[in-house]
Amino acid sequence: MPAISIAEELAKKQREISVSEFFERNKQILGYDSATKALLTAVKEGVDNSLDAAADADILPDIFVEVRKVEKDEFLVVVEDNGPGIVKKEVANVFGRLLYGSRFFSRAQRRGQQGLGISGAVMYGQITTGKPTKIRSKVAEQDVAYEIELILDTKKNRPNVVEEDFVVWERAHGTRVEIPLKGRYIAGKQSVPEYLKATAIVNPHARITYRPPEGDDITFERATEDLPPKTKEIPPHPHGIELGTLMAMMKETKSYKLAAFLEEEFVRVSSRVAKEICETAGLDPDTKPKSIVLEQAKALHDAMQSAKLMSPPTDCLSPIGERLIKRGLKNVLGSLRPEFYAPPLTRDPAVYSGNPFQVEIGIVYGGDLPPDQPVEVLRFANRVPLLYQAGGCALTQSVGNVDWRRYGLEQRGGQGLPFGPAIILVHVCSTKVPYTSEAKEAVATADEIMTELGLALKEGGRRLKTHLTKKEHRAKTKEKFEIVQLILPRIAEKSAKIVNKKIPTLDATITKIMGVVWIDEQIAYDKKLKRHSVTINIHNFTSAGKKLNLHLLLPRGMEAKSMDPKPAEARDDGKITWELKRIDSVTKASISFVLDGLDEAEYDESDVYVSGINPGLVIGAEPLPGDWELNYAEFEGEEGAVPEAAEEEGEIDYDETEESLEDE
Amino acid sequence: MPAISIAEELAKKQREISVSEFFERNKQILGYDSATKALLTAVKEGVDNSLDAAADADILPDIFVEVRKVEKDEFLVVVEDNGPGIVKKEVANVFGRLLYGSRFFSRAQRRGQQGLGISGAVMYGQITTGKPTKIRSKVAEQDVAYEIELILDTKKNRPNVVEEDFVVWERAHGTRVEIPLKGRYIAGKQSVPEYLKATAIVNPHARITYRPPEGDDITFERATEDLPPKTKEIPPHPHGIELGTLMAMMKETKSYKLAAFLEEEFVRVSSRVAKEICETAGLDPDTKPKSIVLEQAKALHDAMQSAKLMSPPTDCLSPIGERLIKRGLKNVLGSLRPEFYAPPLTRDPAVYSGNPFQVEIGIVYGGDLPPDQPVEVLRFANRVPLLYQAGGCALTQSVGNVDWRRYGLEQRGGQGLPFGPAIILVHVCSTKVPYTSEAKEAVATADEIMTELGLALKEGGRRLKTHLTKKEHRAKTKEKFEIVQLILPRIAEKSAKIVNKKIPTLDATITKIMGVVWIDEQIAYDKKLKRHSVTINIHNFTSAGKKLNLHLLLPRGMEAKSMDPKPAEARDDGKITWELKRIDSVTKASISFVLDGLDEAEYDESDVYVSGINPGLVIGAEPLPGDWELNYAEFEGEEGAVPEAAEEEGEIDYDETEESLEDE
Repeated sequence: MPAISIAEELAKKQREISVSEFFERNKQILGYDSATKALLTAVKEGVDNSLDAAADADILPDIFVEVRKVEKDEFLVVVEDNGPGIVKKEVANVFGRLLYGSRFFSRAQRRGQQGLGISGAVMYGQITTGKPTKIRSKVAEQDVAYEIELILDTKKNRPNVVEEDFVVWERAHGTRVEIPLKGRYIAGKQSVPEYLKATAIVNPHARITYRPPEGDDITFERATEDLPPKTKEIPPHPHGIELGTLMAMMKETKSYKLAAFLEEEFVRVSSRVAKEICETAGLDPDTKPKSIVLEQAKALHDAMQSAKLMSPPTDCLSPIGERLIKRGLKNVLGSLRPEFYAPPLTRDPAVYSGNPFQVEIGIVYGGDLPPDQPVEVLRFANRVPLLYQAGGCALTQSVGNVDWRRYGLEQRGGQGLPFGPAIILVHVCSTKVPYTSEAKEAVATADEIMTELGLALKEGGRRLKTHLTKKEHRAKTKEKFEIVQLILPRIAEKSAKIVNKKIPTLDATITKIMGVVWIDEQIAYDKKLKRHSVTINIHNFTSAGKKLNLHLLLPRGMEAKSMDPKPAEARDDGKITWELKRIDSVTKASISFVLDGLDEAEYDESDVYVSGINPGLVIGAEPLPGDWELNYAEFEGEEGAVPEAAEEEGEIDYDETEESLEDE
Repeated sequence: MPAISIAEELAKKQREISVSEFFERNKQILGYDSATKALLTAVKEGVDNSLDAAADADILPDIFVEVRKVEKDEFLVVVEDNGPGIVKKEVANVFGRLLYGSRFFSRAQRRGQQGLGISGAVMYGQITTGKPTKIRSKVAEQDVAYEIELILDTKKNRPNVVEEDFVVWERAHGTRVEIPLKGRYIAGKQSVPEYLKATAIVNPHARITYRPPEGDDITFERATEDLPPKTKEIPPHPHGIELGTLMAMMKETKSYKLAAFLEEEFVRVSSRVAKEICETAGLDPDTKPKSIVLEQAKALHDAMQSAKLMSPPTDCLSPIGERLIKRGLKNVLGSLRPEFYAPPLTRDPAVYSGNPFQVEIGIVYGGDLPPDQPVEVLRFANRVPLLYQAGGCALTQSVGNVDWRRYGLEQRGGQGLPFGPAIILVHVCSTKVPYTSEAKEAVATADEIMTELGLALKEGGRRLKTHLTKKEHRAKTKEKFEIVQLILPRIAEKSAKIVNKKIPTLDATITKIMGVVWIDEQIAYDKKLKRHSVTINIHNFTSAGKKLNLHLLLPRGMEAKSMDPKPAEARDDGKITWELKRIDSVTKASISFVLDGLDEAEYDESDVYVSGINPGLVIGAEPLPGDWELNYAEFEGEEGAVPEAAEEEGEIDYDETEESLEDE
């Protein structure tokens, strides 16, 4: 066949593919690659929509989910909410058209953004059962609800209405969707109830009721009546925006002047900064944006990237928060009674490609968690649990990139998922989470996000290590204490007998032999007052007087009150420092404070550090980490840190010469 | 705010999102999530297109790839081919419009199918550089080439022509694309040259020349002048088609009768089978397909699923083939000199969701491969190397699902990637590979594909284990041989001296003590004739005569000639059996054959098994596996298999009572 006819013949086959034809043939990309997953994905899309709708309208969400068995492998997925409802003329489009939605261009943290989720579920349902989806929606000021049955015409990507009507509905407002689909119902890790439970953990303001195919309803009650702070929409941030995107924005702007364009269409650009950017780029601030040519745009882009700008505002993001992470984890893990919850960590917002994002982690260790399995990674994005594609997800990969051997977990070769009795929770929230596919099952490995995740996980690892080292030191010292207290008196007794003298008092001697500063604490809880009373004791079991600085790290959002003595400094980020002037040999000092308004489980161990003393002497607190920015001039120059190698291996030389006060 | 205005307000934001706007905001889904990956993805899309174009036109591909550095982080990616070219009126659409292509609806194995690849690269290029892409294309009967510079209007998803012209081009026909983009150039595992090398391995009919940003051109010469067998397009297979898809087909068919519709629009449905399906479904074969209602469609769908049908034809698929897998692996691994190449394995085609697919694997072991690392998994789909998203890919996951401890590799808990000096190549080809996203970086875990992968990998593992056990047994027995041959004569000598008698001959005694049947082989290669001459020797080092059946498994596509003695059976699938009637004590039998037309490296070890003898006696061949379907009645009832537990642990009791022939 001559090449002409081949090229011509190939040309005949060229055609446009509608987006719905594409996803009909590639339904695995939307999350429908197996019968089990399909059922869960449909539930997920329904619940995501309901939570977003409630957030849009400042309503405490009340969501009903039902999975009803129709016949052998056919189910009806029902999701009903008390959201604001959808106006009649939009219902068919929202549910019967792919890439149609309200949130795609908004820069605010939402679960759904793509306009693919719920209409994808409708399409999957009709592909596998041949049946339409039924939707009922009522807006507040209407007396009746609008009910519609529709299918999605995949050739045209438009809804086909099968039936429509108005019906009486007792709800004041809300939406109910019923999707028939082929699926398989399973219990266990990737099941509907597990998904809903995980959703409840990170959305404690929602009440979710679940009716399984068999058995009783399960209700996840709301843990708080407070709505999460409302997230705001923001314009893009100049850092990370692509050149081409900038050029497209300049073509479409309504601003007539470049400086005004920058100020109005970007966040964190004041009129002063806008002028500075123009100047750096060598452009007149009054240039018409539409007239900018490629070379000029490049210079402008460079100037925007190099401009020193504030981070994007955080009110567009809705992190779970350190308190809630801990509460959520305790909620899931109650029966496993983990020995330790590393203080959760919410990092400051950062930017990737002009989108603000924020990373949070929590680590749980010990107790009845299995010691010989890979650690479990609980993944969340924009408060949605991620259950699939763990291996392809930035959240899992970043856990594997950390060398956990440094932090007390087993890990072959220092990479990959570590082994040990631990659970690691990772949450990324953003005005635009870069998912690896439309199924939103995994987060892509954008460089900036990987960096933030790495920093958060290392800090979490350090906190875990602190706990493990403290525990180990305490155990070792306790053992020494016990031996010394048992053997020395016996030796004294025997010696006294032999020389026929009185048995000497040994307290000072024992103290001298121990040579440690022992830090422990008592925490009392008053249920009625919802008050934790914390007392930290610093026992000087050395033969000399000691002074030291004690640092407490409180989880974000907790405030210590009635502090006694008054601290030298209490910072907004929860770092509090006391200077303990002198503790005489064989005496103790105490620090006390109260925390109000927490549940009992929310505080069970203080995160304490010391400085201004040889940390090798201290049992029960770690040396102050080097990366904890200090404001105290007097700390400088004093010996403080254990050599890194020793710290790494958890080996501290107890026989190190004591630093004693002059008066000894 | 009352709910009415919220619902109305939300409605105002609802709008359609163009597919290009969607991917502009979600470029990570197309594979552009980092600067490094973006550069590779653009090259990949260009090369995929070129290879597909050559395949469409039965041309031996000659592809030129260049990555040129423009400025600090800007590159120009050039891909030029000798394909049939693209007719003028289609060029702009093919490169400047998403979801536009010729292969989306074709059921044949192609690299590209979605109409997203190259236009996605063009879009990424303009987003990051603001510059257009230049395309030049010439079809055979034109004297000049058509050259166009275009950008993609993402609002409308249509090409915007910046410039166009006709130019003289020395090529007879072909296409050249030049994409400017922001990227980062790296060396190593996920680099452009590594990708091209992997592509060359599985496309040995292609010549690929690569011009890097710095340094000399690299050419991967073609290893064969033979085009791979041309793949044919086929209609869908009734097994696995979705009910909704079937209903949509019936609405659109031009057939007036149900039976004709089934026969014409599905593969493997004869007119007899079509009538049977209608009968099972309780439907009149003359029913008009358009008139079928839901309940009828369901019955028809069930009948189609339960109908006994032939597998889909294989000529729509283009597997790499067992010979080529081995050659490809040797090509990459030459310098590492692995000790063993497990015979590669191409499984028979299977079906998922109506799409035929085929799975192939190859395993390499030992030599200079690192013994303490996770095994490397080389992934391919439709002859395209997969370099990213390994963790989220069915190919990697299926490797992790196998308990490799059974096959001699180390693996914690019997799951996850095993550790050891091994490389596992996995290839899936299909008329429609279910990728997890549009970037085509990972294969989704469709149940049927996972099943086939599992079977293939277990079979591969078994072959590896066979080799490892054989090696271990040989080593053990050799040691025993050496000890016996060393010590026995000394004892004899001493004893003889003491009793003052002549030293006795010990051959028979040694043989009796060894009590093994030793199988080894010599392989000679004649370069001129391209001929392997193979001799397999069976030494009977037991004290009785022995008979046994020897089975040889040849890789697909190899044919043993001049077999001496004649085998009892030689099957098409490469399984050959000899019945060795009697080998006297302390004698040997030999089997010889030749293999023609192979390169020397393609055959270096025979895969042999035994039956009809206590396999515990045999060193150098494994017992015939239970799943090797036998046609020999006489084998039945004879003792043959080592107890499973013993086989698992590689322990064989050498002192087991010998089965001797009657004549001893």
